Amino acid sequence: MRGAVIHAPGDVRFETLDDPKILHPTDAIIRTAITCVCGSDLWPYRGAEPIGDPHPMGHEYVGFVEEVGSEVTSVQPGQFVVGSFATSDNTCANCRNGFPSNCLHRKFMSTCQAEYVRIPNAGGTLVALDETPDKSLWPSLLALSDVMGTGWWAAEAAEVKPGSTAVVVGDGAVGLCGVIAAKEMGAERIIAMSRHESRQKLALEFGATDIVTERGEEGVARIKEMTDGIGAGSVLECVGTAQAMSQALHSTRPGGNVGFVGVPHGVAVDGQELFFSHVGLRGGPAPVRRYLPDLIERVLTGRIDPGKVFDLTLPLAEVAEGYRAMDERRAIKTLLTP
Amino acid sequence: MRGAVIHAPGDVRFETLDDPKILHPTDAIIRTAITCVCGSDLWPYRGAEPIGDPHPMGHEYVGFVEEVGSEVTSVQPGQFVVGSFATSDNTCANCRNGFPSNCLHRKFMSTCQAEYVRIPNAGGTLVALDETPDKSLWPSLLALSDVMGTGWWAAEAAEVKPGSTAVVVGDGAVGLCGVIAAKEMGAERIIAMSRHESRQKLALEFGATDIVTERGEEGVARIKEMTDGIGAGSVLECVGTAQAMSQALHSTRPGGNVGFVGVPHGVAVDGQELFFSHVGLRGGPAPVRRYLPDLIERVLTGRIDPGKVFDLTLPLAEVAEGYRAMDERRAIKTLLTP
Repeated sequence: MRGAVIHAPGDVRFETLDDPKILHPTDAIIRTAITCVCGSDLWPYRGAEPIGDPHPMGHEYVGFVEEVGSEVTSVQPGQFVVGSFATSDNTCANCRNGFPSNCLHRKFMSTCQAEYVRIPNAGGTLVALDETPDKSLWPSLLALSDVMGTGWWAAEAAEVKPGSTAVVVGDGAVGLCGVIAAKEMGAERIIAMSRHESRQKLALEFGATDIVTERGEEGVARIKEMTDGIGAGSVLECVGTAQAMSQALHSTRPGGNVGFVGVPHGVAVDGQELFFSHVGLRGGPAPVRRYLPDLIERVLTGRIDPGKVFDLTLPLAEVAEGYRAMDERRAIKTLLTP
Repeated sequence: MRGAVIHAPGDVRFETLDDPKILHPTDAIIRTAITCVCGSDLWPYRGAEPIGDPHPMGHEYVGFVEEVGSEVTSVQPGQFVVGSFATSDNTCANCRNGFPSNCLHRKFMSTCQAEYVRIPNAGGTLVALDETPDKSLWPSLLALSDVMGTGWWAAEAAEVKPGSTAVVVGDGAVGLCGVIAAKEMGAERIIAMSRHESRQKLALEFGATDIVTERGEEGVARIKEMTDGIGAGSVLECVGTAQAMSQALHSTRPGGNVGFVGVPHGVAVDGQELFFSHVGLRGGPAPVRRYLPDLIERVLTGRIDPGKVFDLTLPLAEVAEGYRAMDERRAIKTLLTP
């Protein structure tokens, strides 16, 4: 089969790879329906994370089950499945507590920009649809495997409640999905911090009520002006840089919450500053598997359409251009068709 | 009048001071019924915080109203009052959101180890009792002005719920009051981390179900053994050092919460570590004023008896010995009688 391999910063290639095989009785193999490039894939692509030996890429997927290991009973060959970027057995103590993305047997997916993919913990990870959905829904279902689930988690961790004010820091796909989530959770006011016109437009379409273009302390000052001088009750940090975290913490009112879902790079939180802010802070890899049944239902009934974050579709063979377009901000998110 | 003045680390003196006067129409003057020394007073006493010029000390008090400013209508001269260490107008946006200890007009109390005290924002800060309570209840009411309220906040911030498991890091007065709070909130299992026999005994009396004497990573390993290998759902960090924070974070299960109420000294939280832990973190100066009506009721009805944390009572004139006894861990908390 063929798939994406990263060799060095800026160097992603489409190559012939070994077909994946069942390695454990809890594995499944899927034929990729569609896959995509994630904002977090840009960390190594930009040299902000070590790459080491050349290796496959990708952790978002929807597909058709090809083969299952002997212990996998919840999905069958032929079914259309959605799964999380973090696999989970769905039975361990952390899974039972609602944190499948901290499953004691978790494996992070990392080979999904390819024609076929091995899914560890397949029984706990994959959710099969009753029937193959219309192709028009595939992008939104694909978004559930990471960005929409991650936006949902940002809003949950930020404790968005009906009537509340939510601020979204970051206008990438996750931030935009965070806007969807905040709206679904009943936020009355949703302030998207964005300076890119196409993203502002999508944020407004997804339910943002206000756009703030300023960043850093200027952005914080704007948010405070809009929130009685004290900041918002819920702030979704969807970037992962020190600047974004600082902007998020300072935009939150005493007693409010920051949900942080951008993988932190160079972020340290000063204990005394956090203490005197009275801000609650929670983040992590999104417990996507917990959300899947609900989010699939919202997609199938047309309530949400997170697939709109894909503004570039390319054949999988052109994956390198998909990375470039996102790196250069010509695309919010690239969808890849095998 | 006379009161305590700190001159240098280890040097607290009982001196003659100017009588406090009404400076603002929102002030009140109280005659101190009893006051005490706080664990946080030991930071400057031990040289861990700069002292600057000699200045009065103390932020915990119950007393009798002597005089009120022209705008104070909620309390009257002669009444027995309890108040918070952080004054609040009880009307600003932060107060309305439940965070009076982040009141936009907040002043921290700092002159309470004295015969008379000026209370800023008196109308919003002081809660008058219907009648002067029996002297036997004064210590528990005094505890509400800080340590009991702070323990309550630690448990609230750690999201202690009925049936949950709570770990308390720190066996000072606040940690011990955290045990009381966790019990009142319905925790099924309360693990107190303590290596001092007298404090262990009080923790058990207050409702702790288990004592862990190990500290640091050994302590964490013990907690994990007791919690299915994953940690506790709620951890109360009642110290404020980097070691205590690390112990608290590592003792918490994914999806669990740390409530941190020890003023952080040298604490920095690594963003990536917090991210992958899935632990929620919230702290700050306790919103004591919000709790006062409820906690006063619990004291007056005999439901809780946080005054037991005072294991040394001295005349106010012997305040220096009160500090020494706590510094040398001969006392958990020193009560002072003017």
